[in-house]
Amino acid sequence: MKDPVYKLIELTGTSTNSIEDAVDQAVKRAHKTVKDLCWFQVVETRGSIAKGEVDHWQVTIKVGFVVGR
Amino acid sequence: MKDPVYKLIELTGTSTNSIEDAVDQAVKRAHKTVKDLCWFQVVETRGSIAKGEVDHWQVTIKVGFVVGR
Amino acid sequence: MKDPVYKLIELTGTSTNSIEDAVDQAVKRAHKTVKDLCWFQVVETRGSIAKGEVDHWQVTIKVGFVVGR
Amino acid sequence: MKDPVYKLIELTGTSTNSIEDAVDQAVKRAHKTVKDLCWFQVVETRGSIAKGEVDHWQVTIKVGFVVGR
Amino acid sequence: MKDPVYKLIELTGTSTNSIEDAVDQAVKRAHKTVKDLCWFQVVETRGSIAKGEVDHWQVTIKVGFVVGR
Amino acid sequence: MKDPVYKLIELTGTSTNSIEDAVDQAVKRAHKTVKDLCWFQVVETRGSIAKGEVDHWQVTIKVGFVVGR
Amino acid sequence: MKDPVYKLIELTGTSTNSIEDAVDQAVKRAHKTVKDLCWFQVVETRGSIAKGEVDHWQVTIKVGFVVGR
Amino acid sequence: MKDPVYKLIELTGTSTNSIEDAVDQAVKRAHKTVKDLCWFQVVETRGSIAKGEVDHWQVTIKVGFVVGR
Amino acid sequence: MKDPVYKLIELTGTSTNSIEDAVDQAVKRAHKTVKDLCWFQVVETRGSIAKGEVDHWQVTIKVGFVVGR
Amino acid sequence: MKDPVYKLIELTGTSTNSIEDAVDQAVKRAHKTVKDLCWFQVVETRGSIAKGEVDHWQVTIKVGFVVGR
Amino acid sequence: MKDPVYKLIELTGTSTNSIEDAVDQAVKRAHKTVKDLCWFQVVETRGSIAKGEVDHWQVTIKVGFVVGR
Amino acid sequence: MKDPVYKLIELTGTSTNSIEDAVDQAVKRAHKTVKDLCWFQVVETRGSIAKGEVDHWQVTIKVGFVVGR
Repeated sequence: MKDPVYKLIELTGTSTNSIEDAVDQAVKRAHKTVKDLCWFQVVETRGSIAKGEVDHWQVTIKVGFVVGR
Repeated sequence: MKDPVYKLIELTGTSTNSIEDAVDQAVKRAHKTVKDLCWFQVVETRGSIAKGEVDHWQVTIKVGFVVGR
Repeated sequence: MKDPVYKLIELTGTSTNSIEDAVDQAVKRAHKTVKDLCWFQVVETRGSIAKGEVDHWQVTIKVGFVVGR
Repeated sequence: MKDPVYKLIELTGTSTNSIEDAVDQAVKRAHKTVKDLCWFQVVETRGSIAKGEVDHWQVTIKVGFVVGR
Repeated sequence: MKDPVYKLIELTGTSTNSIEDAVDQAVKRAHKTVKDLCWFQVVETRGSIAKGEVDHWQVTIKVGFVVGR
Repeated sequence: MKDPVYKLIELTGTSTNSIEDAVDQAVKRAHKTVKDLCWFQVVETRGSIAKGEVDHWQVTIKVGFVVGR
Repeated sequence: MKDPVYKLIELTGTSTNSIEDAVDQAVKRAHKTVKDLCWFQVVETRGSIAKGEVDHWQVTIKVGFVVGR
Repeated sequence: MKDPVYKLIELTGTSTNSIEDAVDQAVKRAHKTVKDLCWFQVVETRGSIAKGEVDHWQVTIKVGFVVGR
Repeated sequence: MKDPVYKLIELTGTSTNSIEDAVDQAVKRAHKTVKDLCWFQVVETRGSIAKGEVDHWQVTIKVGFVVGR
Repeated sequence: MKDPVYKLIELTGTSTNSIEDAVDQAVKRAHKTVKDLCWFQVVETRGSIAKGEVDHWQVTIKVGFVVGR
Repeated sequence: MKDPVYKLIELTGTSTNSIEDAVDQAVKRAHKTVKDLCWFQVVETRGSIAKGEVDHWQVTIKVGFVVGR
Repeated sequence: MKDPVYKLIELTGTSTNSIEDAVDQAVKRAHKTVKDLCWFQVVETRGSIAKGEVDHWQVTIKVGFVVGR
């Protein structure tokens, strides 16, 4: 494709383990409906707290993918 | 769902009444096509002016909702 | 006018009632000296407090209008 | 006081009614423990959604007050 | 439509010619699936480099369009 | 002038041709009423869309000029 | 509580292990003096370097908690 | 005046001495044409360099003043 | 202390003399109630104007200090 | 190279013609001393004005390139 | 050294493992040519995606070090 | 030089005296290795605290200079 056009969608992945795992969850979920995922950018890192400990990491990312012609 | 993934979409609601009403319009419209709306964040507040008075409030929000597995 | 040029001025409207009213005050004041007001953007929302309650809402906006050729 | 020093604290007020009411809640709560509140600045406007309608307005503000010598 | 609601989507257009052409590519691609495109805002301008010269201009825009009732 | 003072005004130039032309329009318009224009900074690049193509480039700039003593 | 009010405090947690551990340290420390911690947001990620390797991860977060009526 | 409206103008003051002096220059110049100046906010601090030393401090401020009814 | 945790508080110092003096006032006031102050970051520089001259410099800083275990 | 490391340098290219040409000038100049240039990001677009017309476009970019092992 | 001067350089480290490892790669590479590295700040976190999974974490940092007199 | 290209480097100057002196230290240090310094922009103002008083002002600037052809 000579001059590709990309679309970016915004997702928040969550995980009880790590920031990386929260991003992975979001990327894997996006892959279920969109095939040509190319890159992501972290937009925001937050989390919920329960009983004085981090409960869920909540990482918002933008994911870019090629849109067909 | 153990580790939910959320999607965020960006909408601009408009209203001749108030900022709150413009947000309501956008949320209600999103609800017509997406069911599990969870939260919103105001991104920008603008408006059009006619005859020296505020005509439409234009409020851009991001709306987050759970995406099924 | 084929390719209009707009000027933006920055104003802070104040009101004891609401954010919308503070914006209205600023737009109406601008209209006294400039006629072709087109749009506004909210830049900042602040306020003064008196006796533990919000006293004045202070909303800073940019107002755009057509400048004649 | 010749050269006052102010402290700023950050609060999120919530309301089912309006953005202004959410700010009022936060200011009134701050007033219970701090007396010389002077001003506030809106930092972020968010909200929760239930059944496709805005449930709670959540407005985060910074509140400034004089700290005694 | 009395109080229209708009949706914004984010796209990255690319071009070997110019920034304007990269935006055009993204707008034209969006037009293939969405009809009532109204406006765009440039979010970011980047590019790839090959052999010490700009290879592709990559311009990310948000495109706004009316969503039907 | 030993220590010059500059004023900055904000303008939005528009053009059906290019970003550069939109800036040129704004600068030329400013020059009609202010003589000693020195520099500009691009604040925002937007545009209107008609029939699925870019209609007008809308570029907001700040223009700085010397204010006489 | 019908319309809860939250307070946000800002902390920098440090760790020789990971970003997540630095956040954990800050959250656990906050829990010693404040009970109803609800959420956190990452504000900044920095670190010190010793002998050409990352020494301490320094992660600044805002932590939100319910303030009693 | 019950609900005052303020206008903000943007100026760059310059000085070979200090940041404070550059701000003073801009405020004094504004005072020549506008009387009810109330406050200023520093927007940007830059400077020119000559022979490896700071030549002029260039401080851009916004100045707010009451606009008559 | 192996992995220290720091708290950041936000203060606005004021001075009729200079930006540095306004910061000093805020730091000295913080020192009256908190002992282990480590660093500060300037968040915003503003000021009040009286009779066309800068009256008070108002500098908002974040101050970081070690919180005991 | 398994896990490449990139360095980013910041340059301001200038041109009397266009924004694209100003970027080209900066990229070409960087290529004289650094070989593996990969991408650029536009940081700021400014310009000088002479006789009421744009004189030089001044575009600041970050340029990224692989650093050898 | 009484009043040290620091230089900051910007690097993007990459890793298939984690954000921390990507930062480590960048710091270690910087250490090869510069000795007195003191601190880093994370500027941006991105990544590439291959086959629907995160391929490389790409973390851009600024690294500060003392420059000799 | 018809269309000069500038390079920007980032430095943190420190001083026990003032913000201006910290900037001067950084500019003078840059001048030792680079000759055609043209301008600087203040990026961040921080400082260290010792015994409840400002110890060192730490001012980060970008310095721009002409790069030869």
